[in-house]
Amino acid sequence: MEKPSLPKGTRDFGPAQMLQRTYLIDTIKLIFKKFGFLPLETPSMENLQVLTGKYGDEGDQLIFKILNSGDFLSDLSSEQIEEGSKKLLPRISKKALRYDLTVPFARYVVMNRHAISFPFKRYQIQPVWRADRPQKGRYCEFYQCDADIVGTESLLCEAEIICMVQEVFKRLNLHPNYIIKLNNRKILTGITESIGKSGSETDLCIAIDKLDKIGIEGVKKELEVRHFTAEQIDQLLPIVLLTGSNQEKLHVLSSYLKNSDIGLQGIEEIKTILNLAEQLNADASTVEIDLTLARGLSYYTGAIFEVKSTTVSMGSICGGGRYDNLTGVFGMPNVSGVGISFGIDRIYDVLEELKLFPGSVLDSSMVLLCAMDELSFLHALPLLKEFRAQNIPSELYPDTSKLKKQLSYADAKQIPYALLIGENERQQNVYTFKNLTSGEQKNLSLDEMVSFLRSIK
Amino acid sequence: MEKPSLPKGTRDFGPAQMLQRTYLIDTIKLIFKKFGFLPLETPSMENLQVLTGKYGDEGDQLIFKILNSGDFLSDLSSEQIEEGSKKLLPRISKKALRYDLTVPFARYVVMNRHAISFPFKRYQIQPVWRADRPQKGRYCEFYQCDADIVGTESLLCEAEIICMVQEVFKRLNLHPNYIIKLNNRKILTGITESIGKSGSETDLCIAIDKLDKIGIEGVKKELEVRHFTAEQIDQLLPIVLLTGSNQEKLHVLSSYLKNSDIGLQGIEEIKTILNLAEQLNADASTVEIDLTLARGLSYYTGAIFEVKSTTVSMGSICGGGRYDNLTGVFGMPNVSGVGISFGIDRIYDVLEELKLFPGSVLDSSMVLLCAMDELSFLHALPLLKEFRAQNIPSELYPDTSKLKKQLSYADAKQIPYALLIGENERQQNVYTFKNLTSGEQKNLSLDEMVSFLRSIK
Repeated sequence: MEKPSLPKGTRDFGPAQMLQRTYLIDTIKLIFKKFGFLPLETPSMENLQVLTGKYGDEGDQLIFKILNSGDFLSDLSSEQIEEGSKKLLPRISKKALRYDLTVPFARYVVMNRHAISFPFKRYQIQPVWRADRPQKGRYCEFYQCDADIVGTESLLCEAEIICMVQEVFKRLNLHPNYIIKLNNRKILTGITESIGKSGSETDLCIAIDKLDKIGIEGVKKELEVRHFTAEQIDQLLPIVLLTGSNQEKLHVLSSYLKNSDIGLQGIEEIKTILNLAEQLNADASTVEIDLTLARGLSYYTGAIFEVKSTTVSMGSICGGGRYDNLTGVFGMPNVSGVGISFGIDRIYDVLEELKLFPGSVLDSSMVLLCAMDELSFLHALPLLKEFRAQNIPSELYPDTSKLKKQLSYADAKQIPYALLIGENERQQNVYTFKNLTSGEQKNLSLDEMVSFLRSIK
Repeated sequence: MEKPSLPKGTRDFGPAQMLQRTYLIDTIKLIFKKFGFLPLETPSMENLQVLTGKYGDEGDQLIFKILNSGDFLSDLSSEQIEEGSKKLLPRISKKALRYDLTVPFARYVVMNRHAISFPFKRYQIQPVWRADRPQKGRYCEFYQCDADIVGTESLLCEAEIICMVQEVFKRLNLHPNYIIKLNNRKILTGITESIGKSGSETDLCIAIDKLDKIGIEGVKKELEVRHFTAEQIDQLLPIVLLTGSNQEKLHVLSSYLKNSDIGLQGIEEIKTILNLAEQLNADASTVEIDLTLARGLSYYTGAIFEVKSTTVSMGSICGGGRYDNLTGVFGMPNVSGVGISFGIDRIYDVLEELKLFPGSVLDSSMVLLCAMDELSFLHALPLLKEFRAQNIPSELYPDTSKLKKQLSYADAKQIPYALLIGENERQQNVYTFKNLTSGEQKNLSLDEMVSFLRSIK
C-alpha cells in the first residue's frame, strides 16, 4: 500500500487553520459588503481560449490544463500525435484551471453585460492555480480575494478603496503597522515624456526602486544599462531623489511636469483621491506616494496601489489599481474600473507572526459532557438537548471512555468547559462543572450551567 | 474576437444567487458547529494514484485529469506516445481534480493520524468535479457538503446526525416537508442470509424499490430476473410487503430475522438510534424505516440515511451512513465512522421552488446617497462617513448621473432606501429620505436617518 501524499505546492487546511482563515476572510467580506460590494463566483475551469494569451507567454506556461476526458487521442492521426507537446496540447485539452480572478470576471461582465446594472461592484474570493515551482510562500493553489468597481471613472472609487483597506486592517488589529503606497501611471508617463523617452516607465521604476540598496551612483548606472542617455539621467535626478511628505512630493512633481498634460492630470488625480479619502475618514498617515510602484504597468492606466506590512518583512500584502480596458480582449471596449486584491496567505502569515488572531476564533463547542458510565451517558442526553435548545454549542463524548481521554479530546478542540457526570451527579442532579483553562470546578445544576454559558456566549 | 463562453456543465453564480447560496451554506455551517463539527479544506487537486481505483471503473473515467505542465512529452519515446490514451495517460498526467470529499478526507486522516484527536468530527464544503455528461441538475462542477465523525462506533453519532438534519431543515423553514429514510445494512444482510442468498442485498433493494411502480407481480418478476428462486421469492414476500409504522416494521423484522444474528443486530441498532435521537429531541414523525434504501451499499456497513423532500419531486437532498473502513485503502484499517452529505444544489432548488429564501438575504447596502450636482456630491461625503462609522452599509453613487439612473442602480441591488441631496437639502442639512419599496419620502436630518437605519438593522 502506497503512503498517500499531497501534490507539491498544495496544502490541507486543518480545523485550527480553517477557523483562522475563516475569521480573516469573513472580516474582509464584512467590510466588502459594508462598502456595497456583492459576491460573485465563477467556475474553476474555463475554456482554454478564454485564458490563453491573457497572461503573456510565461503565464500561459503556468496555466494548468485539463485533459479531455475519455479516449483523448481517438480523433487524432499518428502525425498529429507525434508533432510534439505544443501542437498536441490544444488537441487533447479544451479546458484549464483559472489562473486569476480578473479574466473570469471580465468574461462574466461581457457575457452578462445586458443584465448587469453598472457601476458593478463585485467581490470574489476563490482559489486560483498556477503551475509554478513551489517555494516558501508560493503555492500552486492559493486564494485570491478581489474587489472591483467597473463601469465608472469616478475617483470616489479609488478613495473608497483606500478607506476599505484601512478598515479591513483596523478590524484585523493591524493598524497602524502597514503602509498604503500610491502611484499613478499618468505621472510615470509624464516623466518619461518630459525627458523624451516615452514608454520607458517600467525601466524607470525598476531603476529608481533600487536607490536604497545601491545608492545614487548605482541608480545612474542602472539607468545607463537601460539605455537612458546621460542627459536624460541628469533630468531624472529630482525624480530619483524625490523625498518628503506627500505634499512636498506633489509640489516638486507639479513643477517638474508643468509641460506634460498627462503628468499634470496624474497629479490632479492623486490630489483628488487623497482629498476624497480624507473626507471619508481615511487616515492620511498610512498613505504614501511612491513612484517606484510599477505593478502591472501594462494593465493599469491610473492609480496604482500596494500595501506593505511595516513590521513583518515580506512582499506586498495587497495591491491593485485603475484600468481602462478590462473587457477589450473579449470585444467589449472602454470598460474602466478599479480593483484591489488582498493577499490572504500573506496577511495570514502576518497575523500569525504578530499573534493577532483572537483566541476565541479557535473555540468550537463551549462544553463537553463527560459520562463516567452507561447510566450517566443516558442521563446526559436530556442535558445535551437542553444546551442545544439554548443554542449553546455542546457535545457529549460518544462513549464512556476514561475521563483522561475525554478531557484530552476537549483540550485538542479547545473546548473551555467540561461537565462530569457519574453516579453522585446523576442522583443529585447537580454536576461537576470544570473550567478547563483554570482547572477550577464547581457543583452546578442544569439551570445554573445554562445561564452561566449563555452569559459568556 | 471570439465570444467567450462557459465550459459545459459549469456555472457562474452572480450576486443574487451567491447571496442565497451563502445563506444556505452558512445555515448548515452554523448547525455543524453547534454539533461540534469543525471545518477542513483539502486541495482541489490530488495525486492521481490517490484517486484512481476508489470509484470503480466508471468513476475513474469521470475523474478530470490535469496535464503535466511544460513539455509533457519530453521524456517519452515515440512508441510510448503511440500506445494509445490509456497507456499515455499516466505518463502525461500525475494529478487530478477531486471527485468527492470522502477520499481526500480519508487521505487527510491517514496523513495526520498522529496529530488528530479521535473521535474526529469534521465538516467540509468544497466543489468537486466530474466529467459527466451535463443535464438538468447534473453539473461537472458542484459543491459537496459533508460532515463525518470518525474513530468511534457509538450510535450516538447516528442519532446526532438525525437531529442535525432536522435542525438544518427547521432553520431553512423546510420542516415538516421532508422525510428522513433510515435503513441498516445489517438488516439487509440478515434478510439475504435468511433466504440463503448472501451478497444479494443490492438486487433485493432494487427489486423491492419498484413495488409502487410495478406492483407485487412486477417485483416477483424482477426478483426472478435477478436469479432469486421461486422459494426465495416466496420467503421474501413479508419483506416486499412490509408497511406500517416504524414500530410495526421492526416487529415484523424481529420475528423474520430471529435466526440471523447480524439481522437482529441491525434491528437493535435502529432501535437504539431512534431511542437516542428521541431523547435528543428528534421529531420521530420525520423518520421512516425504508428497506429499499441501497445507496453506497458497497461502502456502508451499518445505518444508511437518505432525505427526500415531500413537496418537491426530485431525488434525495441528503444522504449518508456508517462505514467501517474509511482509510483501509491507504493502509490504515478499522477506522469506523458515520457521515452525512447535504446536496446543496438540490436543496437550493427546493428552497427556490417553495420560495423559502428570506427576502432579506438579498439586501446589500441599506441606503444609497444620490447627489444631484458636484457640490451635493462633496456634501454627501461626510454623511457617508457617518453612516459607515455607525456600521450602516451604505454607498454614494459615484457620480452625479440623472436621478432615474441612480435609483435604478438602487433597485437592481435591492437597496431599500435612498437619500437625495440637491441644493435645498445641502443648504438646510435636511435630506429627502425615500423608501424605495413604498415610494414614501420624508425630510430627515442626518441624526434622524442614522437612528432610523440603526433601529431597523
